[in-house]
Amino acid sequence: MKLWEKGIPTDQKIDIFTVGNDRELDLVLAKYDVLGSIAHAKMLHKINILTEKEATDLVLTLEDILAQIQLGNFTIEDTFEDIHSKIEYLLTEKLGDTGKKIHTARSRNDQVLVDIHLYLKDEISEIKKLAKELFDLLILLSRKYENIILPGYTHMQIAMPSSFGMWLSAYAEIVIDDIIFLNAAQKIVDQNPLGSAAGYGSSFPIDRSFTTQELEFATLKYNSVAAQMSRGKSEKTVAFAMAGLASTLSKLAMDICLYMSQNFNFISLPNHLTTGSSIMPHKKNPDVFELIRAKCNKIQALPYEITLLTNNLPSGYHRDFQLLKEGLFPAIQSLKSCLEIACFSIKDIQVNETILDDKKYNYLFTVDSLNELVKQGIPFRDGYKIIAEQIENGNYKPSKETLHTHEGSINNLCLDKIVSKMAELA
Amino acid sequence: MKLWEKGIPTDQKIDIFTVGNDRELDLVLAKYDVLGSIAHAKMLHKINILTEKEATDLVLTLEDILAQIQLGNFTIEDTFEDIHSKIEYLLTEKLGDTGKKIHTARSRNDQVLVDIHLYLKDEISEIKKLAKELFDLLILLSRKYENIILPGYTHMQIAMPSSFGMWLSAYAEIVIDDIIFLNAAQKIVDQNPLGSAAGYGSSFPIDRSFTTQELEFATLKYNSVAAQMSRGKSEKTVAFAMAGLASTLSKLAMDICLYMSQNFNFISLPNHLTTGSSIMPHKKNPDVFELIRAKCNKIQALPYEITLLTNNLPSGYHRDFQLLKEGLFPAIQSLKSCLEIACFSIKDIQVNETILDDKKYNYLFTVDSLNELVKQGIPFRDGYKIIAEQIENGNYKPSKETLHTHEGSINNLCLDKIVSKMAELA
Amino acid sequence: MKLWEKGIPTDQKIDIFTVGNDRELDLVLAKYDVLGSIAHAKMLHKINILTEKEATDLVLTLEDILAQIQLGNFTIEDTFEDIHSKIEYLLTEKLGDTGKKIHTARSRNDQVLVDIHLYLKDEISEIKKLAKELFDLLILLSRKYENIILPGYTHMQIAMPSSFGMWLSAYAEIVIDDIIFLNAAQKIVDQNPLGSAAGYGSSFPIDRSFTTQELEFATLKYNSVAAQMSRGKSEKTVAFAMAGLASTLSKLAMDICLYMSQNFNFISLPNHLTTGSSIMPHKKNPDVFELIRAKCNKIQALPYEITLLTNNLPSGYHRDFQLLKEGLFPAIQSLKSCLEIACFSIKDIQVNETILDDKKYNYLFTVDSLNELVKQGIPFRDGYKIIAEQIENGNYKPSKETLHTHEGSINNLCLDKIVSKMAELA
Amino acid sequence: MKLWEKGIPTDQKIDIFTVGNDRELDLVLAKYDVLGSIAHAKMLHKINILTEKEATDLVLTLEDILAQIQLGNFTIEDTFEDIHSKIEYLLTEKLGDTGKKIHTARSRNDQVLVDIHLYLKDEISEIKKLAKELFDLLILLSRKYENIILPGYTHMQIAMPSSFGMWLSAYAEIVIDDIIFLNAAQKIVDQNPLGSAAGYGSSFPIDRSFTTQELEFATLKYNSVAAQMSRGKSEKTVAFAMAGLASTLSKLAMDICLYMSQNFNFISLPNHLTTGSSIMPHKKNPDVFELIRAKCNKIQALPYEITLLTNNLPSGYHRDFQLLKEGLFPAIQSLKSCLEIACFSIKDIQVNETILDDKKYNYLFTVDSLNELVKQGIPFRDGYKIIAEQIENGNYKPSKETLHTHEGSINNLCLDKIVSKMAELA
Repeated sequence: MKLWEKGIPTDQKIDIFTVGNDRELDLVLAKYDVLGSIAHAKMLHKINILTEKEATDLVLTLEDILAQIQLGNFTIEDTFEDIHSKIEYLLTEKLGDTGKKIHTARSRNDQVLVDIHLYLKDEISEIKKLAKELFDLLILLSRKYENIILPGYTHMQIAMPSSFGMWLSAYAEIVIDDIIFLNAAQKIVDQNPLGSAAGYGSSFPIDRSFTTQELEFATLKYNSVAAQMSRGKSEKTVAFAMAGLASTLSKLAMDICLYMSQNFNFISLPNHLTTGSSIMPHKKNPDVFELIRAKCNKIQALPYEITLLTNNLPSGYHRDFQLLKEGLFPAIQSLKSCLEIACFSIKDIQVNETILDDKKYNYLFTVDSLNELVKQGIPFRDGYKIIAEQIENGNYKPSKETLHTHEGSINNLCLDKIVSKMAELA
Repeated sequence: MKLWEKGIPTDQKIDIFTVGNDRELDLVLAKYDVLGSIAHAKMLHKINILTEKEATDLVLTLEDILAQIQLGNFTIEDTFEDIHSKIEYLLTEKLGDTGKKIHTARSRNDQVLVDIHLYLKDEISEIKKLAKELFDLLILLSRKYENIILPGYTHMQIAMPSSFGMWLSAYAEIVIDDIIFLNAAQKIVDQNPLGSAAGYGSSFPIDRSFTTQELEFATLKYNSVAAQMSRGKSEKTVAFAMAGLASTLSKLAMDICLYMSQNFNFISLPNHLTTGSSIMPHKKNPDVFELIRAKCNKIQALPYEITLLTNNLPSGYHRDFQLLKEGLFPAIQSLKSCLEIACFSIKDIQVNETILDDKKYNYLFTVDSLNELVKQGIPFRDGYKIIAEQIENGNYKPSKETLHTHEGSINNLCLDKIVSKMAELA
Repeated sequence: MKLWEKGIPTDQKIDIFTVGNDRELDLVLAKYDVLGSIAHAKMLHKINILTEKEATDLVLTLEDILAQIQLGNFTIEDTFEDIHSKIEYLLTEKLGDTGKKIHTARSRNDQVLVDIHLYLKDEISEIKKLAKELFDLLILLSRKYENIILPGYTHMQIAMPSSFGMWLSAYAEIVIDDIIFLNAAQKIVDQNPLGSAAGYGSSFPIDRSFTTQELEFATLKYNSVAAQMSRGKSEKTVAFAMAGLASTLSKLAMDICLYMSQNFNFISLPNHLTTGSSIMPHKKNPDVFELIRAKCNKIQALPYEITLLTNNLPSGYHRDFQLLKEGLFPAIQSLKSCLEIACFSIKDIQVNETILDDKKYNYLFTVDSLNELVKQGIPFRDGYKIIAEQIENGNYKPSKETLHTHEGSINNLCLDKIVSKMAELA
Repeated sequence: MKLWEKGIPTDQKIDIFTVGNDRELDLVLAKYDVLGSIAHAKMLHKINILTEKEATDLVLTLEDILAQIQLGNFTIEDTFEDIHSKIEYLLTEKLGDTGKKIHTARSRNDQVLVDIHLYLKDEISEIKKLAKELFDLLILLSRKYENIILPGYTHMQIAMPSSFGMWLSAYAEIVIDDIIFLNAAQKIVDQNPLGSAAGYGSSFPIDRSFTTQELEFATLKYNSVAAQMSRGKSEKTVAFAMAGLASTLSKLAMDICLYMSQNFNFISLPNHLTTGSSIMPHKKNPDVFELIRAKCNKIQALPYEITLLTNNLPSGYHRDFQLLKEGLFPAIQSLKSCLEIACFSIKDIQVNETILDDKKYNYLFTVDSLNELVKQGIPFRDGYKIIAEQIENGNYKPSKETLHTHEGSINNLCLDKIVSKMAELA
């Protein structure tokens, strides 16, 4: 058993194993931990556990710490287990016994819970803002390329006429669905868990409605056990919503990679958005979009990781929950950077306006030709035979002028209505 | 290569492989396929593609078919590929050429899309209704057992006092979150995709707003490509929402299985809800709750199955989508039956009112004792030492009377506020 | 709570919920349950719990039942909970008290465990046989199309020359890896669990080595708790191995679907392997390969379902394990049918021998041209510039004759060595 | 669109997005990249592309770099994209034109492939070694606690007598299955991919058998496309095998956490392996085992992440593969640390030798009592009634002396046979 009998001393080994990269991850929560503490301090004064002076001292000192965090000057040294210990240390260092009182009537479980809820609320807003920017860009480009025909495929076989406007605004309209899900996730995390203490509440007469207002939560998670149970559940809910948006981005990236292949050649990218090859002088690779696809696919694995971490655990806190952070926090950053880079790169996509010059796309129009015959009174079956014979004999000639009039068809994209649908979600 | 050179003839082999169990699954969609066709027929008349007589004949015949479906007399024979073929056959058999006209300006992709949207809308309503019944039951039992103490655990170690009222209403409040997600999923499927045809719209001047109203959709999925793209996406969205509720049920079932263990003995079930053993006369197994747990865990795998089926496929229809049904449809039935059986079984749970007689639970109250000292003016650290010494010396005596007053604490469960929160979602 | 207060009576509701579709699934196990019982009966005689006459009667009756099973005449009526009850009933009906003795010193957990181990051993052999047939076919076709150039892609961009021989035998060589994993899974299930009873062994002096020999297991799973723990673990292990092979098939199917797109047009299928469209006369869809891809992607979700069902459950039997069957059994049938249909369909694929006539593929040869210059003594960087300039000026002329000599290159596929590698696994 | 119009300049933004944390991850591969380059250099000399002097210079310089890596002095600065660029830079800095020649007849795809194969081979050996140490420890403790009874559970209900020896060696025997799977994974990665270049081989007459021998691979992955295809596939295979072992560890950790609960009190841990609570003086939490469980559950999500990253991508390299490293590498370290800490902590577990003093465990022996009656000639059904009546009347008295004799029963654990089974896998 020599592995643990030399090298790192025992306590340190256990420490490294249990603390992990918590200090680094907790930096993300620093701001929210301070905000939660400010609200808690004010509440303790309101219920007469802290004097006005104590509360004021704590709030002022916490505001100083917040300023340091916002300046990027805040660190969690190895001597501290986590963000909560560090902040309590700073308060005590400055305020002595008053500093120690901040922990009255709460527990670390409590703090992490409220920190994560605040953090997720903010991050969902950020994600939605970026998603909205992508939506706006897609609508903008859809208007710009409204009339340029793009072949539509089913079964990856040439099928019917689509357009760049249709293709781009399709993704825009799908983003609306993703926003609906993000809104639901945000509503779920917008419930104050502070006051659940170790998961079963406290015998101190804390005022949870007060902290709910202070922290601008829409409501409370009333039941203390339910508040505790939202650990893992909140993260999974947000992960589901993120996975929805990620899958939209991933699919869009797949389309772009495919359409950039010389075999499609529907779109191209300016050189600064592609990579070359050190040995093949002709290469122009769409790495950015391959990586958006990959990163978004990885994000789609997150709900599964969270489910595995939390599933079949009975109610009550388990240390397992600590590991939720290390999957979720980077995934949030990754999704935001994918959205940013997607906007950055998609705006420069160049579309091929001469796709239809290639005769293989003539067949896109067989259904339109057939419908035209039907509209002239020829029965569908007879019309079908006529067009089929033309194809067989090689004399099928498509008109290539499309006259699709219905809502959501290539000549009536209803972009304004899609924009309104998005606006209603705000 | 002899495997395919004897036995089943070629065409049949391919047919079996490609059709699979679609006929059976499609029975679930029969009702919705008829409703979609009725709306489509009326619309074709409105845009003058069908005469009034043709439309009336189609609608009446479709209503007859609907009646048969509702009586359970409808079948899809092996000679039909799917529900759509069968219904078109019935229409043509009865109405001749008029029957054939129903397929004008739509495609089977179209039909499946609208069928599934209608089906999911209905099923989410059913699931929400059952979830609401579970919620009501949990609140009811929570009131009944409001004052009976249940040990609260952290790290699966005895921690602090909880109560049966707290435990049961915690799950009730979590169900609210699940309803929020189900509402979002329902909003997403409540968008009419009919009219997208093969995924790129039609050159017929169809009136999609009309069918939207007829089918009582809240809005249209305008963009035809977006409508097509909702295949897979809708199913996944609903699966995410179902997974949320399933995980709540699974966790509750885990708690119940644990609490029924002789090592906890917090609750028991009447005999008709347990199973015995053919060789162990003392066994009383909670199979029902083990199966709720298992079925709900299986449901949580559904989003991953759907993701794997659809991920990295470029836009446009792929035959792969056919397989979405065989995972989703049984999962919906399974979730509904879990909810039903959960209500059926939980209402008969018997709680142990004498748990605290066991001395090992005395330690539940150490924090309350400590807080009491703090409230009397003794500094926290001194109080901690006093209680710790009492524990060490074996003379710690808990009061066992809890005086938790804050919102969501064991003596102030805020059940009415939780009920109101649920009511606001309706 | 009216949902459960009318309609189906209580006991039946619980019965339906708990039994599920077990009877149907158990039919698959019937053969193995009989084989296990024959071995068990012989062993009970060997340790003097059964007389010779009793054992002989049991074995003969069980052999009769086996014959009925093999004729397809065996059913499990609704009056029986599972396969084990049905067989015990048949034995008792025929042999009276002797029939009842078969259950001495074992439990149903025991029986299911041994049934599933025997079943999985057999099915893995079947899967390996079919995988080997696919391997043979791929090698055969690889020899046939050894010299026909196929464009090779990186980043879905035209890159370097490949060949149909290279492409097909690549999948063959990957199948070898899948067989290695299937062999490992088979080795893991090839351990006799019979005798573990309810998971903790028996106080009867059973002879587990005897049944191990009788049932042709390679060894015992000695520890009774380990034997019980293999429930779920065995299924997951086999699911992992199946997922490996499924992912190979899925990727091959994806290539085929892409290569059949008119934008690639590298291969085509005879009409009987494609489907048309009722409205688009030009369509020839590769549904068979789309469904192979989809079914194999679904199979890849199975390990996650099994993980979710079993994860975080403490040791010992749980009723949850019953649900393992309903995911695994159909997945095994699905994988076998995908392999069969893949062989059936791939053998008729037609390859395009004139791909290189399209000038866009000229760039496949830039690296070969460059290497040629290097071999003539021109420094790499200078060579690179020369070719790059030719491309720029539009006068790059590829030789299109490849002279790749190394092992595993397009002109030296080493098919015999790949065949040997596979042969060594037998 | 202001997000990308200020702040980080364009090129840097794309660089950050595409390079990600590759530099950090690549440090793990540094050693293997050098070893691969040494073999490649020697081979280039063998086929007369490098002179003897050039090869010697390259090998000596590479050996110097290797020494630096092993001393921990090696870094990849931000000016280098990856490990390959850094090493090529060092060679060129030292050797001028000779340094540049190392890249002849290979590509970076090639290098990453061979690096990862070498790395995985090594790491699997490490994991197996640690797993073997855990196995040895479990067998050791099993011998030590061979005769101490532990209650056995089914459905989490008290069922039949087990023992600490049985419980511990069950996990030992299951680890054997995990080693079988790790062996298979290792066999799969033990195939030299070097020479596949960009995935389609090279027109240089490289000698792949030579590098196979130099790098001590068991065989070649012959087909260049197959070699390239092993990217993603190898990682997934190893992830599957790791998931198997992780699930064993996770289950063991779950058992330990449960058995440490005061409601079981079967085992305890010395203080240095538990954590306390700042407010509850009685707490002794098993954080180490909760984190082993959690980390191992996270590892079980890895195969799914890899599947999502690679699934439905057609053959040929995609940039997506870059993301494989950032999931896999930390998971390998995590699994190794879980194994180390498990051994470190399990060796100090204290078992409760007086569990049976609690009367609720009397029922463990009902089946043994019943079997005893059967052995005395009383028919099973009559015996069952006798025992059932005793239980009912409260006068059931278990003997508590177990006489289980069969292989793998509590009084015949067959530890030597289990040890032999493990030894045969070496």
